[in-house]
Amino acid sequence: MEFRSIVGVFPCQVHWGDCDPAGIIFYPTYFRWMDAATWALFESVGYTPQRMRDEHLSMPLVSADCQFLAPAKHGDRCEVRSRITRFGGKSFVVAHEMTSVDGAALAKGAETRVWGRARPGETLKGEVIPDALKALFSER
Amino acid sequence: MEFRSIVGVFPCQVHWGDCDPAGIIFYPTYFRWMDAATWALFESVGYTPQRMRDEHLSMPLVSADCQFLAPAKHGDRCEVRSRITRFGGKSFVVAHEMTSVDGAALAKGAETRVWGRARPGETLKGEVIPDALKALFSER
Amino acid sequence: MEFRSIVGVFPCQVHWGDCDPAGIIFYPTYFRWMDAATWALFESVGYTPQRMRDEHLSMPLVSADCQFLAPAKHGDRCEVRSRITRFGGKSFVVAHEMTSVDGAALAKGAETRVWGRARPGETLKGEVIPDALKALFSER
Amino acid sequence: MEFRSIVGVFPCQVHWGDCDPAGIIFYPTYFRWMDAATWALFESVGYTPQRMRDEHLSMPLVSADCQFLAPAKHGDRCEVRSRITRFGGKSFVVAHEMTSVDGAALAKGAETRVWGRARPGETLKGEVIPDALKALFSER
Repeated sequence: MEFRSIVGVFPCQVHWGDCDPAGIIFYPTYFRWMDAATWALFESVGYTPQRMRDEHLSMPLVSADCQFLAPAKHGDRCEVRSRITRFGGKSFVVAHEMTSVDGAALAKGAETRVWGRARPGETLKGEVIPDALKALFSER
Repeated sequence: MEFRSIVGVFPCQVHWGDCDPAGIIFYPTYFRWMDAATWALFESVGYTPQRMRDEHLSMPLVSADCQFLAPAKHGDRCEVRSRITRFGGKSFVVAHEMTSVDGAALAKGAETRVWGRARPGETLKGEVIPDALKALFSER
Repeated sequence: MEFRSIVGVFPCQVHWGDCDPAGIIFYPTYFRWMDAATWALFESVGYTPQRMRDEHLSMPLVSADCQFLAPAKHGDRCEVRSRITRFGGKSFVVAHEMTSVDGAALAKGAETRVWGRARPGETLKGEVIPDALKALFSER
Repeated sequence: MEFRSIVGVFPCQVHWGDCDPAGIIFYPTYFRWMDAATWALFESVGYTPQRMRDEHLSMPLVSADCQFLAPAKHGDRCEVRSRITRFGGKSFVVAHEMTSVDGAALAKGAETRVWGRARPGETLKGEVIPDALKALFSER
């Protein structure tokens, strides 16, 4: 059963250096956006970058994918709409939809991530995702 | 039936700026590598960047995915082994395996791309992939 | 005599992937910001990316420099304040100040660029900067 | 008096995603190359990324600049020739020359860096550069 998640909105723009000689967005840019959008989604529920650092938390990737639906061009104002579609024991899935601000679908993708902690000098270990954390993302 | 492809080898290295505050490779870097590895594979059969420009050819993406198997660190010398696993009418799939030079599997991914042409001032159009082009990638 | 320029404000944020294993911004990020801020400054006076494309205009770099004053961290909300400090015949200088939104100076830099045009299939040539263009950037 | 330094050679290539819609290298790419070339120069004298991590050393930037002499294109094989031009008490300057492998000068730049140490949980502090370290870079 899909988790019913809040939806985060991450505004972004296609910059000159994000484009390739074909004049359209260089595709790894979408993955940079998805990564930043996931961090923004967590910030929106109180897990700011500062807090993540203080608690030695991070969210390494298991996998990522993206379908490219229409080319974006330099200057296009866009947004990434992100929601958590699944919580496992120590992992979760974030789905992302990239659109231009006029509503055109540009790309859609997903990331599977582990919820992990790495105390200074130690290797990151996955941690069971607390129910309290999951609750923060529940659609209200 | 899977296409029996030559295998290209693209050497690369994890640079300081490719890593994130967790001290491991920032995942969009793998997609940058896959993109460069596909261009290198085409160069190896005679489709150099210069020729691609001269003939107004490019290979925009339909989709891309990657599984992350083990974290790579700053300084790791790596390689991407790439082969074409499928040729459709106007599209094709490139599979990539990222390993460190000591043989450890780091990540594996795939790109689905269109074979396209965009004459100056025109929009890119997919083109039927010539048999002669497919033959260049046949395992010998 | 320094040109008295309008000042553009380009908001930006330090993303996870913009940082390095030391946990601070990877310095080429500032140059990416400066480039995007220059395009935004031109957009603010009517030279949008779309118009630049339509008129085959671009602004290649002659030189760039940056001093790094304080480290920025993941999550920091920042802005680039940009103004044109000099117009030459075919070139111009853009000065940029990077600050965090709480006002801390992070970095300051400058770009020297050529005003150029490259019609399809032709090489870019520098063009004399029209007075009308310079006037658009005059402090009002 | 300029320090007489060994010269490191860092091979690199202009990838598709390193270029912009004008079809030439996006300029922050040169700074990414300079950064990687500095790390390679230090690796060449025994300061590998692994050793730098183990000893909690890094080399944050004070300033960086670059002059762009000729445009590089997708596919160009290049190299960065790097040498240390000055050692101060806790800082040093690395000069970089970017050329294509056929010898054409593409860009030249410099970085001023601090030699610093940040033990886990502590802020980075500049350290006096040991004479033994300077000696490693002496032209032989």
